[in-house]
Amino acid sequence: MSDAPGIGVFDSGIGGLTVLKALRAALPPSERLLYLGDTARVPYGTKSDETVVRYAFEGARFLTRRGIKALVVACNTMSAVALPELQRAMPFPVVGVIGPGAEAACRATKSRVIGVIGTAATVKSGAYPRAIAFHLPEARVVARACPLFVPLAEEGWVDNDVARATARTYLADLRGGGIDTLVLGCTHYPLLKTVIGEAIGPGVTLVDSAEATATVVRRRLEEKGLLAAGAAPAGSAAGATGGAAAGRGHFYVTDSSERFLEVGQRFLGQPLGSLELVDITG
Amino acid sequence: MSDAPGIGVFDSGIGGLTVLKALRAALPPSERLLYLGDTARVPYGTKSDETVVRYAFEGARFLTRRGIKALVVACNTMSAVALPELQRAMPFPVVGVIGPGAEAACRATKSRVIGVIGTAATVKSGAYPRAIAFHLPEARVVARACPLFVPLAEEGWVDNDVARATARTYLADLRGGGIDTLVLGCTHYPLLKTVIGEAIGPGVTLVDSAEATATVVRRRLEEKGLLAAGAAPAGSAAGATGGAAAGRGHFYVTDSSERFLEVGQRFLGQPLGSLELVDITG
Repeated sequence: MSDAPGIGVFDSGIGGLTVLKALRAALPPSERLLYLGDTARVPYGTKSDETVVRYAFEGARFLTRRGIKALVVACNTMSAVALPELQRAMPFPVVGVIGPGAEAACRATKSRVIGVIGTAATVKSGAYPRAIAFHLPEARVVARACPLFVPLAEEGWVDNDVARATARTYLADLRGGGIDTLVLGCTHYPLLKTVIGEAIGPGVTLVDSAEATATVVRRRLEEKGLLAAGAAPAGSAAGATGGAAAGRGHFYVTDSSERFLEVGQRFLGQPLGSLELVDITG
Repeated sequence: MSDAPGIGVFDSGIGGLTVLKALRAALPPSERLLYLGDTARVPYGTKSDETVVRYAFEGARFLTRRGIKALVVACNTMSAVALPELQRAMPFPVVGVIGPGAEAACRATKSRVIGVIGTAATVKSGAYPRAIAFHLPEARVVARACPLFVPLAEEGWVDNDVARATARTYLADLRGGGIDTLVLGCTHYPLLKTVIGEAIGPGVTLVDSAEATATVVRRRLEEKGLLAAGAAPAGSAAGATGGAAAGRGHFYVTDSSERFLEVGQRFLGQPLGSLELVDITG
């Protein structure tokens, strides 16, 4: 492995792999990506702010010791709760998933009514409405917690009767409310894009926070002169996983790896490769 | 609070409250029940055996320091993985939820084909088939992991379209396979009893591990001369929550209490009362 500092991608578990996938598509193949999933303590969404901040710093310090030049907080809960403190404390750029998703939604909306879906913790935090108000003060935000989407995505039930009924039930309130843009405010949700799109109906733009985040990370690295040499994979913007990117990156988890490998492959769209079990509490 | 030793009830989170409810119904009102939910680290079902055993001992030691005469491991994952070690180490009776559920299923079955549903970890552990073989070696066991039932129960979606579609999808394989008894091998599942019963079809006895466990706990306490004086609430066997029992018990959690109070009330069938945030890692 090269010793050049990499880009840390930190999530409470497996969902951040959708962000990693988007980063792979947006960054030059020579960028080293270090993914940390705190699988021993996932989920963060039901934990107190104090606990989430403590865990966030443990993970950030672990990745710092491994050598990184930027940190992506690929978890909405952690972004909502711990980002400002991390940004103050760390000596490199720290990018969360909420700001980029909010910014992309503000660019996309014409009706200025924006829907946001996420975990209970993310919705309760009010982080998306705050971030949207920063970019587009006149926007109205309608938020809805969709806790079952996460276990559905992990179960691989992304296009069956249950997934469709769940999406219909959660999104019934949002339909017809004038929203023209819906932020997928949880890293698991891109897997359910199809049923979410069907349930919310035509004419609503889905904003994938993972893709929006990858775009912002690239911009920040360029601004700071930190971007590695080499072009991004063809069709870099989003979604596609360049074959050239395969094998880039190292995966750290804090608990058993078998399920992570199996479910992770679905999230990443390709096998993960090497996986290392680590203790980040030290 | 009385200083008489109580009965510890330890779960990874909130599901064990269905066991606490059954214990309240089965034990004299003077029994003190100490519930510990390791809500900071829930769920255990996706964690490695080593981690689950370590957490189990931390919880058991915490409750021991608070003064208990018996420990109920009200979590299938922990019962499957850590029970023998806890039983060897602790100086008082330790009862899990798997043995009692298996025993009750063996008494109920006539076809000797028993279905078991639980989390992925519980099913993978093979603990139910082993426990059933101990009581009824000629029984055949058909097991099925139903990971979505836990978030459904916590969301309170126990009788809507999504719950019914989920139950139908999971239980399709088990229908018509000759099973006449189905073990609800997860403490969350009693909340979904109705849709599970509909999906599995008529003529199948549902075995509620929580009720079976409460019956075994009472028997063990009587055998050891440890049962507190006083009669059990009227209609003690199961399900009903005696009004006289209200207020008995103390609730410890390792992380934020708000959601636990809200969801817990659904599981317990009544408000929880006092709640104490504790650190059990010391």
